[in-house]
Amino acid sequence: MRENQLRSLWRAGHAATCCWLTIPSAFTAELMAHAGFDSLTIDLQHGLIGYETAVSMLQAISTTPVTPLARVPWNEPGIIMKLLDAGAAGIICPMINSRQEAEAFVAACRYPPAGQRSYGPRRAMLYAGADYPEHANAYVLAIAMIETASALAQIDEILDVPGLDAIYVGPADLSLALGVAQRVDQDDPIMVAALDRILQAARRRGIPAGLHTGSAAFAAQMFARGWQLATVQTDAAFLEFGAQTALSQLRGSAAVQRSGPY
Amino acid sequence: MRENQLRSLWRAGHAATCCWLTIPSAFTAELMAHAGFDSLTIDLQHGLIGYETAVSMLQAISTTPVTPLARVPWNEPGIIMKLLDAGAAGIICPMINSRQEAEAFVAACRYPPAGQRSYGPRRAMLYAGADYPEHANAYVLAIAMIETASALAQIDEILDVPGLDAIYVGPADLSLALGVAQRVDQDDPIMVAALDRILQAARRRGIPAGLHTGSAAFAAQMFARGWQLATVQTDAAFLEFGAQTALSQLRGSAAVQRSGPY
Amino acid sequence: MRENQLRSLWRAGHAATCCWLTIPSAFTAELMAHAGFDSLTIDLQHGLIGYETAVSMLQAISTTPVTPLARVPWNEPGIIMKLLDAGAAGIICPMINSRQEAEAFVAACRYPPAGQRSYGPRRAMLYAGADYPEHANAYVLAIAMIETASALAQIDEILDVPGLDAIYVGPADLSLALGVAQRVDQDDPIMVAALDRILQAARRRGIPAGLHTGSAAFAAQMFARGWQLATVQTDAAFLEFGAQTALSQLRGSAAVQRSGPY
Amino acid sequence: MRENQLRSLWRAGHAATCCWLTIPSAFTAELMAHAGFDSLTIDLQHGLIGYETAVSMLQAISTTPVTPLARVPWNEPGIIMKLLDAGAAGIICPMINSRQEAEAFVAACRYPPAGQRSYGPRRAMLYAGADYPEHANAYVLAIAMIETASALAQIDEILDVPGLDAIYVGPADLSLALGVAQRVDQDDPIMVAALDRILQAARRRGIPAGLHTGSAAFAAQMFARGWQLATVQTDAAFLEFGAQTALSQLRGSAAVQRSGPY
Amino acid sequence: MRENQLRSLWRAGHAATCCWLTIPSAFTAELMAHAGFDSLTIDLQHGLIGYETAVSMLQAISTTPVTPLARVPWNEPGIIMKLLDAGAAGIICPMINSRQEAEAFVAACRYPPAGQRSYGPRRAMLYAGADYPEHANAYVLAIAMIETASALAQIDEILDVPGLDAIYVGPADLSLALGVAQRVDQDDPIMVAALDRILQAARRRGIPAGLHTGSAAFAAQMFARGWQLATVQTDAAFLEFGAQTALSQLRGSAAVQRSGPY
Amino acid sequence: MRENQLRSLWRAGHAATCCWLTIPSAFTAELMAHAGFDSLTIDLQHGLIGYETAVSMLQAISTTPVTPLARVPWNEPGIIMKLLDAGAAGIICPMINSRQEAEAFVAACRYPPAGQRSYGPRRAMLYAGADYPEHANAYVLAIAMIETASALAQIDEILDVPGLDAIYVGPADLSLALGVAQRVDQDDPIMVAALDRILQAARRRGIPAGLHTGSAAFAAQMFARGWQLATVQTDAAFLEFGAQTALSQLRGSAAVQRSGPY
Repeated sequence: MRENQLRSLWRAGHAATCCWLTIPSAFTAELMAHAGFDSLTIDLQHGLIGYETAVSMLQAISTTPVTPLARVPWNEPGIIMKLLDAGAAGIICPMINSRQEAEAFVAACRYPPAGQRSYGPRRAMLYAGADYPEHANAYVLAIAMIETASALAQIDEILDVPGLDAIYVGPADLSLALGVAQRVDQDDPIMVAALDRILQAARRRGIPAGLHTGSAAFAAQMFARGWQLATVQTDAAFLEFGAQTALSQLRGSAAVQRSGPY
Repeated sequence: MRENQLRSLWRAGHAATCCWLTIPSAFTAELMAHAGFDSLTIDLQHGLIGYETAVSMLQAISTTPVTPLARVPWNEPGIIMKLLDAGAAGIICPMINSRQEAEAFVAACRYPPAGQRSYGPRRAMLYAGADYPEHANAYVLAIAMIETASALAQIDEILDVPGLDAIYVGPADLSLALGVAQRVDQDDPIMVAALDRILQAARRRGIPAGLHTGSAAFAAQMFARGWQLATVQTDAAFLEFGAQTALSQLRGSAAVQRSGPY
Repeated sequence: MRENQLRSLWRAGHAATCCWLTIPSAFTAELMAHAGFDSLTIDLQHGLIGYETAVSMLQAISTTPVTPLARVPWNEPGIIMKLLDAGAAGIICPMINSRQEAEAFVAACRYPPAGQRSYGPRRAMLYAGADYPEHANAYVLAIAMIETASALAQIDEILDVPGLDAIYVGPADLSLALGVAQRVDQDDPIMVAALDRILQAARRRGIPAGLHTGSAAFAAQMFARGWQLATVQTDAAFLEFGAQTALSQLRGSAAVQRSGPY
Repeated sequence: MRENQLRSLWRAGHAATCCWLTIPSAFTAELMAHAGFDSLTIDLQHGLIGYETAVSMLQAISTTPVTPLARVPWNEPGIIMKLLDAGAAGIICPMINSRQEAEAFVAACRYPPAGQRSYGPRRAMLYAGADYPEHANAYVLAIAMIETASALAQIDEILDVPGLDAIYVGPADLSLALGVAQRVDQDDPIMVAALDRILQAARRRGIPAGLHTGSAAFAAQMFARGWQLATVQTDAAFLEFGAQTALSQLRGSAAVQRSGPY
Repeated sequence: MRENQLRSLWRAGHAATCCWLTIPSAFTAELMAHAGFDSLTIDLQHGLIGYETAVSMLQAISTTPVTPLARVPWNEPGIIMKLLDAGAAGIICPMINSRQEAEAFVAACRYPPAGQRSYGPRRAMLYAGADYPEHANAYVLAIAMIETASALAQIDEILDVPGLDAIYVGPADLSLALGVAQRVDQDDPIMVAALDRILQAARRRGIPAGLHTGSAAFAAQMFARGWQLATVQTDAAFLEFGAQTALSQLRGSAAVQRSGPY
Repeated sequence: MRENQLRSLWRAGHAATCCWLTIPSAFTAELMAHAGFDSLTIDLQHGLIGYETAVSMLQAISTTPVTPLARVPWNEPGIIMKLLDAGAAGIICPMINSRQEAEAFVAACRYPPAGQRSYGPRRAMLYAGADYPEHANAYVLAIAMIETASALAQIDEILDVPGLDAIYVGPADLSLALGVAQRVDQDDPIMVAALDRILQAARRRGIPAGLHTGSAAFAAQMFARGWQLATVQTDAAFLEFGAQTALSQLRGSAAVQRSGPY
C-alpha cells in the first residue's frame, strides 16, 4: 500500500505545500508534479476541469510521489466516489455549512461500516496497491472547506464529526460571507479573527487546518501561525505571472515601446 | 477582411513579441491571448499539441486581436493547409534546408496561381471574413525556420524564394547543427556570427527575421540589433518559472525547512 | 465590464432571438455565433454536451458579441456555478417546480449576500472583464423554466422570488404535464391558456418571458403577443432541415429515382 | 420502434448475460458489442467513464443489436435523463435504500404522467425510432441496485414501487454492508441467505433479479437458481485475464526466466 | 462480408448521393447518416476533423447502412491506411496530379501483391466482417481527385492506373487552377469544357466520375449528364442554411425589426 | 537519466516481452503497464490511436518502470520526433524497404551530428531526466520493421545502417509480401526460411531482432531460437480472449442455451 505522504507529513507535525490545478491538462499536471509541491489539488470546482480530464491528471501526478487531491464541485456523493475510485488520495469539499453536511461528506469517503462509499476502486488499486480496499478508509483524506458564515458559526460541530481529517479555508468566499472586501491574503481584522478562530478550533482537536493563499509570503506567515496546509496560487496564476514578468521587461525595451495589441 | 496585425507591425518597421504555446489547452491559449503578446504560435512540432486541440486554441485566441500563428511538425502540405483552413494567420515551418524546400512550403500556403493550396477555408472565413478567399495569399504569413547547417549555407537562395514572408531561427537546433553547446540566448562567437549573417541576409531583402529566445533581456537585445520577431520562452516555461519563484520563497520559511517530495 | 446584451435588449423592451446548441462542438457553436441570433443557449440538458465541451463552446461564442447562455441538466449548484465560472452570461434551469426550488436556483447564481455562489470566476473574468466580481450579480441572468403542472400552479410564488431575471417555457414538457399531445407550436386551447397565464403573470411583474418554438412563424406570433425571448429550433434541427431540403430536391431528379439506403 | 431485447428475453422467461464496460473507449465498447453478450452496461459509477464518452460508447454499441444499459454514478435525475436522451435502453441506479429513493429513480425514467422525465430524446429517437416518445415509458428499463443494509431491510417496499422493472445486486457493496468479507461470488452463509431473500422477494412479484459475478461458473449457478441477469466481470478484468494468461505461459519459457520489471 | 453499397450502385449504373462531413462530431455524423444520403465523406482535408474524431464518426455511420468514405488531407500512406483500418469503405485523395501520384495512392489502398497496404484492419473487420482481409482489395474504393491543371493535362494517364475505382472533381480548386473565378456550380465555358473532358475520359473507361456541388439543382443536372456521384454541400452549409432560413423569417417579424448583434 | 530497460535487457543478452497497445485509452495503457511486460508499444499504425491519446498513454506507462515504445504510422519525421519529444523510449517504424529509408528513419531519431532530430524534448525531459538532451542519442531505440519483399532482399544493407538499434518483423505483412497465406505464428516453410534469414543477418551484427506473435507458445519458441523481442498479441486480442472464455463457459449453462444476440 502506497503511503499517503500528506497524511504522514501532518502526523509528523509538518506543514505541507499545495497548488491548485485549474488548467484541464495532464501535461501541466505533470509539469506541476515535478515542480516540488508536497501535494496538488485538481480543482473540479473553479478550475475548468471535468471528470475525465481529472483522471488523466491523476495519472500524470502518479508518475511522481506527489500526493494528489481533488476538489469536487459540490458535496455530491457521485463525483466524490468517482474521484476516489480514480485514485485521488483525498477530497476537498467546498461549502460545508453544518454538521449534517460534514457527516454526509465524510460518509461518501468511507466504506461501510464507517460510511457509505460504494465499492469499485478500479484505478485506486493500480495506483495505491492491490490492498487498497483494506486500507482505503485510513488512507483517504476527507477535507471540509470552511468558507461560509454558517460554517463559521458551527465550526465546533463540524470539527467534531468523526472521520473528518482536515479543514480548509477558502478566504475569498469567507470574505464575501463576512461582508469583507473579497481578496486573498487578508489583513482585515474581521477576517484575521475568523481565521484565528477556525485555526484554534481545529488545533484543539489535533485536526490540521489549511487555506488558500495568494503569495508565498502570506503562506509562510500562515505556516508560522500553525496552519498545516497552504495552497500557493494556481497553475493559471503562475502562468500569468511568468508571462507578465517577461512582458514587463520587454516593454522596457526601446523596440517595443509602442502600444500593444490592447 | 481582418487585418493581419503581425504583418502590419512589420510593414511599419516594428518589432513584435510572440510566445510559443506548447500546452494542449484552449484555456491556457485564452489566458496567454490576454497577456499582451502581439502574436502567439501554437507549436505542433515540439509542443504536446495535435490538430484538433490546435483548432480549439485558434478559437480561443480569436476572442482577442492577437495574431495566431502555428508551427507545423514538418514541411508537409496536409497539415499546413489544415491549419490555414482552421484560421491560422501564418505558418512557421521547421527545418527548411534548401530553396526547393522553401518553395514547397510557400506553395502550400498560397492558392493558385501563386501556389498549390487547396480551397476550403472553412473556419478561416469565419475568423478573417467572408472575403478571405480573395485576400488569403496576401494575408497568410509563410515563415521558414533557419536552423540547420544546410539552411545557413543556402540562406540567400532560401530568402530569394518569392512569397517567403519572414524567417525564424531556432537557436537550439542551429547550435546543434554548428557543433556549439546547445542552448538559447547564445553568446558563443560561432552562433553570434551565424545569427548576424542570417539577420543581414534577411534585412538586405527587407524580410523580417525572428528568433526564439529564453529571456526578455535577450529578446530586447535582439530587437535592438534589428530582429523583428522574438518569441520569449513558452507557456510551459512561464508556468515552471511561476511555481519555482513561489516554492523558493516558501522554502525559506521555517515551517517547510524539511526535504520536499523529491 | 462587458455588457450583457440580452439583458440590455430586455431593458429596452425588445424581444430577442435564441437558438439551442445541442451538438457538442465548438465549431458548430462558432458557426451559429456568426448566424445572427441575439443569444445562444448551450444545452447541457437535452443536448449531447458535457461540461468541458460546453466550455469550448463558450470560447467559440466569445469570438462574437452574441450572448452565451447555458441550460443545466438539473437544479444542482455544482454545474450552475461551473458554467458561470466558465463565462456563461446566464443560466436556464429546467423543471423549477416551486418557490423553494426557484430560490435555490437564484442563490446558486449570486455571490453573498444575495446568494451562495462560490468565488472563482476564472474564465468569466477573461471573458467579461477584470471587474467581473463586482458586477457579476447584476450581469448574470437567472432564468427559470416553467414546464410542469406544479410550476404552473405556483407561477406567482415563483415569479416573486427576488433576483429571478426571466422565465422560460418548455412547451413539450408543459404539454406532457397538462395531458396535451406533446408538440411544440401548440394551438391546443389548454396550452394556449397556460401560455397566456404564464405570460401575463410575468408581464405584471416586468419579468421577461421566453419559450421554445419549432418555427420562425410561431416565434414571430409569440413575439407579437409579448414574449421577449424565443428559441427557434436547435442546431441539429437546422442541420436536418438543410439535408432534407437538398435530398427532396435530388429525389425529384431522374437519376436518383430509386429507393435510397433505407 | 426498436425492440428492447433485454426486456423481451425477460418476458420470455430467459436469463440474460451482461458485461460492465469500465474502459472509457468507444472502440472497446464496439469490440465487446461483437463478443456475444445480450446486454452491456456502461458503468459511469465505478468505470472511468464520463458522460460524453458514454455517448460515444452508446453509438458504438448501436452498430449491433446488443441492448445498451448505463449505470449512473448516483440517483440524480440530471445524469439519468441525459443518458436516456443519449439512447440508453435502461438505467441501473446504485444504492437505492428505500421506497422513496426507488420512486424518485423510477420517476426520472418516465415521462409524465408516470414520472417526471423531461422531454428531449435527441439521440434516442435516432437509435430507437421516430416513435420513441410514445413508447419510451414501456421501453426504458429502470433497474434499482440492492446493495445496502437498508435496502435489504426494505426490499419489499422497494419492489412494490410501480414501474420498477428489475433489481440488481452489487455483491461487493452488500458484503461490506453485511459485515462479510468483501468479495464477489460469495458462499458466505450470510450473503447466500441475503441473495436468496432478495431473489425470492423479486420472483414473487415477477420482477427479474440480476447480479454482478466474478466468473462464468458462478453466473451459471445463479442462472440455475433463477437469477435472470448476470454480469460476468468487466472489460478491464477480461483484459487483465488475457494478459496474465499469456504472461504466465511466457514465464515458463527459459528465455524469460529472469525477474520481470516488477 | 458487408457489401459496399456505393460500389454496387455504380455497378448497377446508378448515380449516388453524398454529403461532406466537416463538423468534428459523431453526433452530427449519426444525424446525417439517418438523413438519406447513399454515402457520406468524412472530410479530413478541409473539414475540422482529426483522425480520432474521424474514427468516432465512422462508428456513428456504422449504425446505418450508409457507405462511409473519408477524404484524406494529402496523398500520404500513413493516414490512408489508418482510415482504412478504422473501417472507411473508400478513400478520396485530393490533388492527384500525375500517373505516379495515382499509382502511389492506389497502392496505399491495396494489400500486396496489388499494392503496399500494411496489414492490421482492426475496426474494419468489426465493421465489414471477419473475412475482410480476403475481400478488402475488392471492397475498398480508391477515388482520386482531379482538381489541378496538371491532373487535367494527364487525365488519361491517371485514369489508366490499374485499380483506380473512381475520380472526383473539386470544382473550387479546378476553377482556381484554370484561372476561372472560384465557385461551385460553374457555368463558365472553360470549366464546363474541363468537366466534360474529365467525364468523357472516365466514361470511356467505365470509371464513375463524381463531383462536389453547391446545390441539389446543379447535382441533378450533373447526374443527367452522366456523373455518378454528387456531393451536395456540407453538413456545415446545411446548418447555416437552416439558421438563415429561420432568421430571415424572424426578421420579417415586427418585434425583431431592429439591428441584430452584428 | 532514466535507464532504458529494454536496451539494458538486450545488452545483457536477454529476450524481452512486449505487447501492442491498440486501444486509445490511458486507462488500458496503465492496466497493461501493471501486467508485467518488459515493454509496451503504443501502436499508432494499426491501433486506433492518434497523437494526443498516445501522449496520455505515455504518461500512464510512466507511472511504472515499463519501457514505452511507439509504432508510427509511416516513416515520416514529424510524427517520429513528436513521439520522442513526448517521451517514447524508442520508435518502431513500419515498412522500411531500403538502406535509404532506414537511414532517414534513424536520422529522425538522432540529434545532429548523428541525425536531424529537431530539439525540443519537452515531456521527455520530465520523464527521463533533465540531462536527457546529452543522452538522448544513446537512449532512444530506433527499430526498423522488416516486412516487405524489398526489405528481405536488402536485409544486409538495412542492417548495416549506422545507429539502427534493432529490427522487428511484422509476420502478417511479410506473409502477404511473400505470397504466403497471411497469418501470425507461421510454420509455412517460406516464412520459416525468411524469418531465419532475417534473424541470422541480425545476429551476425549483434543487432536484436524481434517479431509479432499471436501466442505465448510461439513467442517462447522464437525466444528459444534467438529472437530477443516478442510481442504477444494486443490489448484488444486479450480483451476478446477474456470475453470469449467467459461466454463459452456461460453457453454451457442450461439457462442461456438459446441463440444469442447474433
